[in-house]
Amino acid sequence: MRATDSREFEHIRETLFELLDKKRIKLLRQTLEEMNEFDVAEFLSEIEPAKMAMIFRMLSKEKGAEVFANLDVGEQEFIINSVSDTELGDIIEELYVDDAVDMMEELPANVVKRVMRAATPDTRSIINQYLNYPENSAGGIMTAEFIDLKKYMNVKESIARIRRIGEDKETIYTCFVTSSDRRLEGVVTVKELLLANDDDVIEDIMDRNLIYVSTTDDRETVTEKFSDYDLLALPVADSEGRLVGIVTVDDVIDVLEQEATEDIEKMAAITPSDKPYLKLGVFEIWKNRIPWLMLLMVSATFTGIIITSFEDALAVQAVLMAFIPMLMDTGGNSGSQASVTVIRSISLGDIEFSDIMEVIWKEIRVAVLSGVALACATFAKILLVDKLIMGNPEVSFLVSLVVCITMALTVFCAKFVGCTLPMLAKKAGFDPAVMSSPFITTIVDAISLLIYFSVAKILLHI
Amino acid sequence: MRATDSREFEHIRETLFELLDKKRIKLLRQTLEEMNEFDVAEFLSEIEPAKMAMIFRMLSKEKGAEVFANLDVGEQEFIINSVSDTELGDIIEELYVDDAVDMMEELPANVVKRVMRAATPDTRSIINQYLNYPENSAGGIMTAEFIDLKKYMNVKESIARIRRIGEDKETIYTCFVTSSDRRLEGVVTVKELLLANDDDVIEDIMDRNLIYVSTTDDRETVTEKFSDYDLLALPVADSEGRLVGIVTVDDVIDVLEQEATEDIEKMAAITPSDKPYLKLGVFEIWKNRIPWLMLLMVSATFTGIIITSFEDALAVQAVLMAFIPMLMDTGGNSGSQASVTVIRSISLGDIEFSDIMEVIWKEIRVAVLSGVALACATFAKILLVDKLIMGNPEVSFLVSLVVCITMALTVFCAKFVGCTLPMLAKKAGFDPAVMSSPFITTIVDAISLLIYFSVAKILLHI
Repeated sequence: MRATDSREFEHIRETLFELLDKKRIKLLRQTLEEMNEFDVAEFLSEIEPAKMAMIFRMLSKEKGAEVFANLDVGEQEFIINSVSDTELGDIIEELYVDDAVDMMEELPANVVKRVMRAATPDTRSIINQYLNYPENSAGGIMTAEFIDLKKYMNVKESIARIRRIGEDKETIYTCFVTSSDRRLEGVVTVKELLLANDDDVIEDIMDRNLIYVSTTDDRETVTEKFSDYDLLALPVADSEGRLVGIVTVDDVIDVLEQEATEDIEKMAAITPSDKPYLKLGVFEIWKNRIPWLMLLMVSATFTGIIITSFEDALAVQAVLMAFIPMLMDTGGNSGSQASVTVIRSISLGDIEFSDIMEVIWKEIRVAVLSGVALACATFAKILLVDKLIMGNPEVSFLVSLVVCITMALTVFCAKFVGCTLPMLAKKAGFDPAVMSSPFITTIVDAISLLIYFSVAKILLHI
Repeated sequence: MRATDSREFEHIRETLFELLDKKRIKLLRQTLEEMNEFDVAEFLSEIEPAKMAMIFRMLSKEKGAEVFANLDVGEQEFIINSVSDTELGDIIEELYVDDAVDMMEELPANVVKRVMRAATPDTRSIINQYLNYPENSAGGIMTAEFIDLKKYMNVKESIARIRRIGEDKETIYTCFVTSSDRRLEGVVTVKELLLANDDDVIEDIMDRNLIYVSTTDDRETVTEKFSDYDLLALPVADSEGRLVGIVTVDDVIDVLEQEATEDIEKMAAITPSDKPYLKLGVFEIWKNRIPWLMLLMVSATFTGIIITSFEDALAVQAVLMAFIPMLMDTGGNSGSQASVTVIRSISLGDIEFSDIMEVIWKEIRVAVLSGVALACATFAKILLVDKLIMGNPEVSFLVSLVVCITMALTVFCAKFVGCTLPMLAKKAGFDPAVMSSPFITTIVDAISLLIYFSVAKILLHI
């Protein structure tokens, strides 16, 4: 059952559906039990809800919980509503706390109530505690199942402990050495344990370079730690410095993808959503997009006003019109390049507000290079295309000059605005990603028009 | 030495610099040996090259190699040039193959030659073999150091083997069960080994649901597997299905960040580069951006031509000018929203070309909703702002109608173009990310103008 080979997986799916149609439930159940939980979830989400719940209930407790964690909220909700409280209780107990919490954050209130009733008091209190951490904080993504050791234990005892309590821990490979008051004193990996001698004492082999985050730290801080230090698990401490949970690398991978998607969506003026595109309803998509379009549409009024105010000038030199889109687009693109680069660098932790001067100085030099290059190219293009090929008589030398000067100045301003706004947004506590292409474009549009008409006024005396 | 707490790290840095100035080399060396390799690299890259090389050479073999892997190519090159062949040989031998290969891909040819001479024949042949895999393929990011077991071994023997050969493996937590002809037969985790009984046989506890990729698979396939199946390591098989290497989760995290950054940069019409922004020279940044700006600038010619051809019409109804930026921007933004969403979904593996009809149908409905909403908003805005507040007499009811109809039609076309082009690009074998905001905008600009003037011709008889 190679999950990777999609053709083979196709084949398995067919067999499963065949078994389902032929009601060969026992065999179907066996096959599912042997399959990877992710593939089982894929299969379940393809069959009609009623049957899905029926088949889900056939699965073993453990398998059931694993599969459940891989289903979409909608499917999870359906299953919750179709199982008995005892069955529900079993699922919740088997789930890792962080999976349970993720689910709770999505489910409608009434369903959550029922789930909480079904959970044991301990689980309930843990989940409650977790639900109080903001979804984007380290506390929001951490899990409570980790292995803690004491520094006076020796390797043999430690391995024995891991074997005893390891079963339902999300990771056993990083063990956390805690003091009697649950403070983190050191970290030791199973690799180190295996490579050490049985009677070595933890205190001597544990790593004291503690890398940890606090429950309130942002998700991005967590991902940075993982990519900087190549971790498998990161300890999370509360305000009193006590170890309350860990974040495991598999959750970090999901966070990384979500963070990037959110940035990308914000950069395109879309309100982020964590559902995959095909699962989003038309109205949801619309709701995530329309407010930004409206806002940008209205703010484009200024460019309109500018043009209106120069209408007479344009009437005299109608040819100037033809170059407006090119100037606005090039300005917008130059600005986006700068802003997007800066935004991404900020969220990767490559640059901070303190670097603003260095960034501006870099962008200014890039802007001069680009501005000059584009101005020359424009000049050549105008003479070649508009004058020779199109043979437009109105395109005088002066007009081309106006366009080229505007081009250079616009690119310069665009790069400057593009690199400063995101950093200022960050400083002001907003998400820099919002200060990207669409907004930069709208601002640069207005700037470019003002430059254009001013230069025209001076050189063409209109 | 809590690497996380930046203030404390500041403090350590100061101490280190103090030790350096006071030439208290012995103590400095001790401190560095105890520190995390990433932080040591950070420290080294802050001091002048000559001193850096000097201090680097003080580090122990193992530490040296770890730190070396965390330096930038420039720094690595400087060190390579300042160490003896024997020292260089040691570094290369200590490096994990994938780190060594990453370095080779960046270094100038002459330096690579020297490194290869310094490496032992075995290492050299492995590196050579790896260098032949494309940088973005599974083969390009895999490492050769993994633990292989035989299915007839029992748990005790297996753990003994791990303890024996585990030292210099990049991960020991996932062990790969191979046949005599190096084919992958199963996978067993150290967790499973620890939780099993000493005399259990691997064959009985190993997982036969093989999840693997082949050396030529794209990096994105690798990252998908990791996020789907929550893996710590993924086996890589050659064309004959033999196990040649593994990809570890820490490398996948770097790949995920690179992939996202590349997508984002392409979406903003920038040629991607894997150096962090502040390390990029002004000319490099310029080289990555200017070709796209040129291309887009030239392609904006069409919009110019369209406007010129309608110059007379515009002369009659100069007021139409004022709305062009708003129409073009809104069109561009609507298009980008669709394209960016689709591009991201493609690279996350959420949608494939086969979904094109579903995607188009979704976007069409979103487009209708957005178009109508924006048209109404525009109408209100024109009557309120342009007519009442600005008191522009030229803004007649008919003119507003023209603008609103154009708005609706433009948004519709924009969404359609925005969602189809990336999928077609993907189908044609291009990177869909290129079919994003800037290009969509340029295309939509032309479309919106054509619609605008045609509608105007019909309703205003110009």
